[in-house]
Amino acid sequence: MAIHNFNFYNPTRILFGQGQIEKIDKYIPKQAKILITYGGGSVKRFGTLAKVLTALGDRQYAEFGGIEPNPVYETLMKAVDKIKKEGFDYILAVGGGSVIDGTKFIAAAAKFPGDPINIFAKGVGQGQAIQEALPFASVLTLPATASEMNSGGVITFKEKQAKLSFGSPYTFPQFSVLDPELTYTLPQRQLNNGICDAFVHVLEAYLTQPIEAMIQDGWSETALRTLIKLSPQIKEGHNDYAVRANFMWTCTQALNGFMSPGVPEDWSTHNLGHEITAFNGTDHAKTLTPIILATMKVRKDEKFAKIVQYAENVWQIQAGDDEAKYQAAIQATEDFFKSVDMPVRLAEIGVNAEDIDYLVQQLERHQMTALGENRSQTLEISRQIYQTAL
Amino acid sequence: MAIHNFNFYNPTRILFGQGQIEKIDKYIPKQAKILITYGGGSVKRFGTLAKVLTALGDRQYAEFGGIEPNPVYETLMKAVDKIKKEGFDYILAVGGGSVIDGTKFIAAAAKFPGDPINIFAKGVGQGQAIQEALPFASVLTLPATASEMNSGGVITFKEKQAKLSFGSPYTFPQFSVLDPELTYTLPQRQLNNGICDAFVHVLEAYLTQPIEAMIQDGWSETALRTLIKLSPQIKEGHNDYAVRANFMWTCTQALNGFMSPGVPEDWSTHNLGHEITAFNGTDHAKTLTPIILATMKVRKDEKFAKIVQYAENVWQIQAGDDEAKYQAAIQATEDFFKSVDMPVRLAEIGVNAEDIDYLVQQLERHQMTALGENRSQTLEISRQIYQTAL
Repeated sequence: MAIHNFNFYNPTRILFGQGQIEKIDKYIPKQAKILITYGGGSVKRFGTLAKVLTALGDRQYAEFGGIEPNPVYETLMKAVDKIKKEGFDYILAVGGGSVIDGTKFIAAAAKFPGDPINIFAKGVGQGQAIQEALPFASVLTLPATASEMNSGGVITFKEKQAKLSFGSPYTFPQFSVLDPELTYTLPQRQLNNGICDAFVHVLEAYLTQPIEAMIQDGWSETALRTLIKLSPQIKEGHNDYAVRANFMWTCTQALNGFMSPGVPEDWSTHNLGHEITAFNGTDHAKTLTPIILATMKVRKDEKFAKIVQYAENVWQIQAGDDEAKYQAAIQATEDFFKSVDMPVRLAEIGVNAEDIDYLVQQLERHQMTALGENRSQTLEISRQIYQTAL
Repeated sequence: MAIHNFNFYNPTRILFGQGQIEKIDKYIPKQAKILITYGGGSVKRFGTLAKVLTALGDRQYAEFGGIEPNPVYETLMKAVDKIKKEGFDYILAVGGGSVIDGTKFIAAAAKFPGDPINIFAKGVGQGQAIQEALPFASVLTLPATASEMNSGGVITFKEKQAKLSFGSPYTFPQFSVLDPELTYTLPQRQLNNGICDAFVHVLEAYLTQPIEAMIQDGWSETALRTLIKLSPQIKEGHNDYAVRANFMWTCTQALNGFMSPGVPEDWSTHNLGHEITAFNGTDHAKTLTPIILATMKVRKDEKFAKIVQYAENVWQIQAGDDEAKYQAAIQATEDFFKSVDMPVRLAEIGVNAEDIDYLVQQLERHQMTALGENRSQTLEISRQIYQTAL
């Protein structure tokens, strides 16, 4: 066992800290005609958009607001049409993971030969590779997804009740502004979602099998311990810069690829969670917490050694035998999720026993029949996980 | 105290693992005319160059060998002349940190308007910024410096007995091949140098002042613990792939910027060490180990809190008061350096009391009069450090 071969690449520049929005001026070409994308309007309400416009100075721009949480294909295609009609050179996303994910798709679709639906496979398109994208950047307002420093996105298809992912080497943001002060206006619900989204991102690439990847494991454990330690201080209206700075950077690191090159990655919790959000609109992070707890139980044999390591190195559980450590780690994880008001059972997010057949059917429709780091999670195991999570 | 504002950017691709040399073909343009740079010829002896040539296929190339450990300005300028005469589009460095550092300089100098001496300031040139460089990449044969994934280099000026650094956003390798099997032919001396070079790189950005940078500190502590744990297994001829893979990746991470965005960085140990290598040719890493031990003693007040943290989190020293932990951490560091046959006193590397005046004069000549994370290390303090290290 050893680190697997890997190909690591992440060219996104990070402008981190108070007042960094003004640096936008240095990194977007002076002559660029810019489309500014955002979500529901909080960036107007809290003055972030105004700061962005000041930084852009005399540059030509237009706005495209209304990108939903779980951004919807049809909405994004309106931005693509606008770009094709009006000729923008650059997109600047101002918002959280949904706005940035949506912007990645817009950037790729605007340059895509043929129908952009074919960027996706899995029952909606043909799965053609992205070969080009408009340059884009982001101003992050919500720490959680790390979309600000990676090349992937997840798009919602409402009619098909599907959330499908895409990615390419061309869809990294050129830069992202991470100003921890922009998190001061976030409600507790979004802060809690962010904590747990980042936590589960780390677990997806950590709770697999041990391969003696010492740096990767140690960095993952650091990120998990940091989120656990910070969580009681990440409170709405409690504007401690040091806390928010650590929180923001941890969320970015949780999915920018730095911690996981050459290690197995699971992502089945995300796959199962996406079906729930597509089904009933539950916040993304709130689908992850019940599912990962059930995954740790159902796929016990496969993940046992790493969960014991997680018990020891993240939760400092040293007492008892390995079985006791394994059980204690699951309990500690459940208690942690509860401490930040996140669900630990599907019943809390409106999923009941009679919904499981549909969720499993949707997995099948989306070709999610062999999930996880070993492609061992069959539909039957996914069903067990949903049932265990009820 | 909180994470400082920072601007992070690192676009180097890493191709990691067994057999990755063949991937070169994908990442260098087919039409490129390539200058292959290397050092003393071990890349020929051990077959690495042959593998590189196979991967390059039909591409036009020429070789430029003979880049010294501590690469010398005049040697590198010969490569620059060759490029200007023969018109190369791409440089491929095959070697360790010296070859890669030298190649960065060649790449920048080949495109530099005017005399490339002006890339350097500090008594040799005018300190003009690099605005362009030839594209280049590397095949790493010696884990130590992380030059394979950063944009800096150190060049030796023999006549002036100076080692001077440079860097720019244009001098990142486009990609670097990290194949742990290429370390199997390294002699113990170079393995030990690599362990301690990486260890001190981490310490330069860690043993400063605490600013509650939780990810950065945790990642640095992981890297230090990893080097300590691996060191008894990093033995010449002991070709354990997992060990070498962890060692290689740790060395790269120790100075690619991932661990230290927004934290204070010292680098005075490197500044004082460079003067020793320029003076008597001592291996770079062997100048660092005595100097950093003395720095921990002389700059005790400034670094006390972080050295106590280092004692607790890296060396697991929990007994005694902070003073006892501070003392024990220095002793543990000294014992560690000795365990890998590295010097802990300057006498072991040919520096004696009567040489200190000259070394301090050289620091002054190179404008190294206010060193360290707080610019507090005056010439007088540097003198004390040299004396304490004797």
